[in-house]
Amino acid sequence: MRAVDIIAKKRDGGALSADEIAWFVRGYARGDVPDYQAAAFLMAVFIQGMSREETVNLTLAMARSGDVLDLSDIADYAVDKHSSGGVGDKTTLVVLPLVAACGVPVAKMSGRGLGFSGGTLDKLESFAGYNVQLSNEEFRRLARQNGIVLAGQSHDLAPADGKLYALRDVTATVPSLPLIASSIMSKKIAAGANGIVLDVKVGRGAFMTNLDDARALAQIMVDIGVDAGRDMIAVLSDMNQPLGCAVGNALEVAEAIEALNGGGPADLREHCLEVAGYMLRLYGRGRRWTDAAETRADLEACLHRGEALAKFRRMVEAQGGDAGMVDDPARLPAARLVEPFAAPQSGFIAQAAADKIGIASFELGAGREKKGDPVDLAVGLKIHVKVGDRVERGAPLATIYLRQ
Amino acid sequence: MRAVDIIAKKRDGGALSADEIAWFVRGYARGDVPDYQAAAFLMAVFIQGMSREETVNLTLAMARSGDVLDLSDIADYAVDKHSSGGVGDKTTLVVLPLVAACGVPVAKMSGRGLGFSGGTLDKLESFAGYNVQLSNEEFRRLARQNGIVLAGQSHDLAPADGKLYALRDVTATVPSLPLIASSIMSKKIAAGANGIVLDVKVGRGAFMTNLDDARALAQIMVDIGVDAGRDMIAVLSDMNQPLGCAVGNALEVAEAIEALNGGGPADLREHCLEVAGYMLRLYGRGRRWTDAAETRADLEACLHRGEALAKFRRMVEAQGGDAGMVDDPARLPAARLVEPFAAPQSGFIAQAAADKIGIASFELGAGREKKGDPVDLAVGLKIHVKVGDRVERGAPLATIYLRQ
Repeated sequence: MRAVDIIAKKRDGGALSADEIAWFVRGYARGDVPDYQAAAFLMAVFIQGMSREETVNLTLAMARSGDVLDLSDIADYAVDKHSSGGVGDKTTLVVLPLVAACGVPVAKMSGRGLGFSGGTLDKLESFAGYNVQLSNEEFRRLARQNGIVLAGQSHDLAPADGKLYALRDVTATVPSLPLIASSIMSKKIAAGANGIVLDVKVGRGAFMTNLDDARALAQIMVDIGVDAGRDMIAVLSDMNQPLGCAVGNALEVAEAIEALNGGGPADLREHCLEVAGYMLRLYGRGRRWTDAAETRADLEACLHRGEALAKFRRMVEAQGGDAGMVDDPARLPAARLVEPFAAPQSGFIAQAAADKIGIASFELGAGREKKGDPVDLAVGLKIHVKVGDRVERGAPLATIYLRQ
Repeated sequence: MRAVDIIAKKRDGGALSADEIAWFVRGYARGDVPDYQAAAFLMAVFIQGMSREETVNLTLAMARSGDVLDLSDIADYAVDKHSSGGVGDKTTLVVLPLVAACGVPVAKMSGRGLGFSGGTLDKLESFAGYNVQLSNEEFRRLARQNGIVLAGQSHDLAPADGKLYALRDVTATVPSLPLIASSIMSKKIAAGANGIVLDVKVGRGAFMTNLDDARALAQIMVDIGVDAGRDMIAVLSDMNQPLGCAVGNALEVAEAIEALNGGGPADLREHCLEVAGYMLRLYGRGRRWTDAAETRADLEACLHRGEALAKFRRMVEAQGGDAGMVDDPARLPAARLVEPFAAPQSGFIAQAAADKIGIASFELGAGREKKGDPVDLAVGLKIHVKVGDRVERGAPLATIYLRQ
């Protein structure tokens, strides 16, 4: 096989075989296929698209480019979740301990924030000492011991995806459905998940700004998962306004702790119960948690009995974080300057533009422009209103947490 | 400006501005824009195409990426020709001396053969000692002294085109009209031509196999030239069967010498008179050589008086070649084995497939698979028949010249 023939076939709109895709991805991961050929390939895929079968094969080729985790000694069935990213999205921080508290082991790899999208790893580093870089052995040991572990992705997982992702960023080939879907799913499959709940955000603060695009992305990821033998559930959730109130790393952690204490904003709580419920349903495989109301009752019981919070505390402690901060969130990194922002007039809230709020948080220092940039854990915003709320002139719309 | 924004604009089918194209090409020539971004750009251009204006701007940007020759001290008006390449195409070897003999200075840069297409430089090296690598100064001096020079392209001319051409070869982005046209025209413009005759070959032995494609390529090159302020004439010529009889380096040189002696195959002679006539017409700019019949008479007179051959001889001698070989073509490199190929039955010639004959010559050793490979100057074929000819069983169809 020759790279140039595979590129030409896709360039002309042809469908690539499983062998051709595997050959190309393997060659690129090894360095036999150079960046410039992969760049031409990516642009051809971007413009000509890929069939469901090709997208599945691309996903599997990337998943198999490195280690594929086998979690069968930890859980007879591994459930995972993935969010397509949004503003104020601290769902993982609540859902993982919640599911673990119900007796379902969770071993999840998360990412860092980029642009105005936050990342779970950055948020976790609000706990002084929290170690996101675990070896495969530590990762497995903690999952086995505590039934919960939440760390960064190992370099050995789907290395072809990591390389292709970096190349897409500089060749204008990021916003392509098959490329996005295969990138996400290759990591999930390599991470050993049997069942996956996809939380696809839609709206002005999300990658997909309209419902059709979000549904298409969700569908193709479900298709990939199903064809790869995984159980899949996709949730489309609103990202026109931020999820919850807090936007910014430590602020979001504090809000997640509120939710684990049974409080926190209603929309966050509702969304977390939904996603966690679907994870339990997948794990139950028709034998347990088949009834939504009963599942919800189980989850609420875990919250009320403090079991979810206890799981969270154990996870923070096990990964070297200061668990005292879980008990006393006031000890989390705090901004020196806190400015209220009052409603300049009375009326109803028509918009709480997630993208603009995300950019504001980014500008305050909570986000990073490019990989490797530092983030300020303390800064961000709290948005005290939701679309449809009635506010009076002078009432607090938001609180801004600034760097000194 | 950012490379990734320019790539994205073309990816989405947008039209690039002159500034954007110039920025990208200059950046790539300098090495500021890496190969992988240029590869993604080329694929986007390949699939989305380029408008006439964009193609002109790409051509000018590549032409200006290095030196642009000014030949005004050699000729008040410089004429050039370009052939899109075919099998047995020795037109340049005949046309250049013919035009020079009419008092029109010609200073041409040619290329080497690749695949089954021959190259003028390889053919000229049949003359022992012929130097195709001239400095800019030598090139100009010979043009001024003899009114004729024929050498390889300087590295300083259109270096961006050279770099992009090599990248296209390995990224499946060669057969694109705007990329082909801009590549050819950038070199012609950088080489200082005021008027250009394009000889676009069409047929099974040419790059363009059908008339529509050939006409489209000719039209876009004419458009580029016109927009860049050049005078343009394009000829579409048949390449379903080889031009003339000889295919192979020294064999073609011998046939060109026959034509310069007033003989040679009728189709070759006719084609050369046509192309040379258009070059004179461009040079005359409406003041001279406006009448096709008179122009032809001038050219035929130059042939009959031996002036065209004398110009050729002077050129070979001036560039260090063994001019005795012009006087006695039997001294040109000769194959040890010469095999006749007889008609297995009587009938009419329906095809003399230029592509297959070209491949046969390539397989005999006359061509090169990749840049830098050596070629065998002596080998090749002579095809003694043309489509429509009546042949009897046992009559010679071809002669094959083999390596020992």
